[in-house]
Amino acid sequence: MTSAAPSLQLLPVCGLPMIGPDSDLAAELAAAMARAGLGVEDGDILVVAQKVVSKAEGRQRRLADFAPSPRAQALAATVHKDPRLVEAVLSESRSVIRAVPNVLIVEHRLGHIMANAGIDQSNVAARGGDDETILLLPADPDGSARALRTRLCPPDVGRLGVIVSDSFGRPWRVGTTGVALGIAQVPAVIDRRGEADLFGRAMQVTETGFADAVAAAAGLAMGEGAEGVPAAIVRGLAWQPGERTIRDGLRQAEQDLFR
Amino acid sequence: MTSAAPSLQLLPVCGLPMIGPDSDLAAELAAAMARAGLGVEDGDILVVAQKVVSKAEGRQRRLADFAPSPRAQALAATVHKDPRLVEAVLSESRSVIRAVPNVLIVEHRLGHIMANAGIDQSNVAARGGDDETILLLPADPDGSARALRTRLCPPDVGRLGVIVSDSFGRPWRVGTTGVALGIAQVPAVIDRRGEADLFGRAMQVTETGFADAVAAAAGLAMGEGAEGVPAAIVRGLAWQPGERTIRDGLRQAEQDLFR
Repeated sequence: MTSAAPSLQLLPVCGLPMIGPDSDLAAELAAAMARAGLGVEDGDILVVAQKVVSKAEGRQRRLADFAPSPRAQALAATVHKDPRLVEAVLSESRSVIRAVPNVLIVEHRLGHIMANAGIDQSNVAARGGDDETILLLPADPDGSARALRTRLCPPDVGRLGVIVSDSFGRPWRVGTTGVALGIAQVPAVIDRRGEADLFGRAMQVTETGFADAVAAAAGLAMGEGAEGVPAAIVRGLAWQPGERTIRDGLRQAEQDLFR
Repeated sequence: MTSAAPSLQLLPVCGLPMIGPDSDLAAELAAAMARAGLGVEDGDILVVAQKVVSKAEGRQRRLADFAPSPRAQALAATVHKDPRLVEAVLSESRSVIRAVPNVLIVEHRLGHIMANAGIDQSNVAARGGDDETILLLPADPDGSARALRTRLCPPDVGRLGVIVSDSFGRPWRVGTTGVALGIAQVPAVIDRRGEADLFGRAMQVTETGFADAVAAAAGLAMGEGAEGVPAAIVRGLAWQPGERTIRDGLRQAEQDLFR
């Protein structure tokens, strides 16, 4: 027996300049990839951190612009957070899933269940002097991924997946791992239902969270600290291209036991 | 600016023979790695699927040997599963987290919250003719990882992490991703609390689920289907060695909002 399976590579895309609302993110990614000698190869999946996508799309907001409603004020007292931040979280959300001191978990209007609606206060430069700035998720992360794909896929390459990723905390387990907020061409989930196992019995484990696993893997190459590596290429995976949306990777509420 | 960050590699360990209770898993892994030309390098993390670890440790059980208690019979009626299987799940568990038709989520006595206590009926050869066989998790996955590390780490290599991995479903999101059941030398969680972000503010996202992310990444190289690639090496990550346990990666019940 020999090792037939090819190895996979996780290639960090380093050296991007600071990204802001005036940045052309696709052009900056292309330039950074060129400097690193990273040409796009068929089957590559480019994972881009939500933070730089949001910054380039102008999703910075001034905290002072969120006037807390009575509901936000009450919730802020419960979770011990700034009422303006809570107002911003509620404005981005469909529903509150859990609210206890220091923790506010919501269903984002995009469908992701996450802390603080993904609103970030770190690594965001204040735009107006000493006023505090926050950063919202992209308005349409699938669309963001598709737009980057359109700009970055060379004409002679058939498959270039793009994932806009974030890091989520999880129930039951400590620490964040990467997840996919938006996808282009690459599947959210790979369905193996019906495939036979080694003994011919139908497999029990049926669907793999492909885009999330790719985002988690890319997170290892990107780091999550101050290094500021906002993108990575995952090279060598087998996947079938298609028109995709991350909504296929989100459990329907009626099939979920933890809301 | 240049690309200073090194790339990471995910190297599948293919060509293992069928593993059973008489197998020497460490020897089989060493032989498969040698055939693939995969020598251990300092900093490598070897991820081994729980299934082959359990098989080599003789964790096969005959379903017929589990006599359902009244509690198991009642629960089996709720979840529409074989009462003997439910008895086996309960014997491996501390508590039932959710039980609805077709879904039985428990806290395994090891602390992991997972479906069916990780008991697997696929890819398990029946030992006694046509009787059904199930496969339990390793009794001590941290110990399993340590034992593999002791056997596989060359004397001239300081750092070889070992992770015993499984694939878990998740709340809110479709599809399984890899998680760590047991670890040796490699950290469960990397704590970045106190590190400054790009603007000098303390970072909000603080702890990364390192071992789980590595397991998820390795899962991409191992596949989860019938191909039977039960191990992979993750090469090129920065991590500090220590005496570790996956318990550091499991949330304390009183800090968990989803039980």
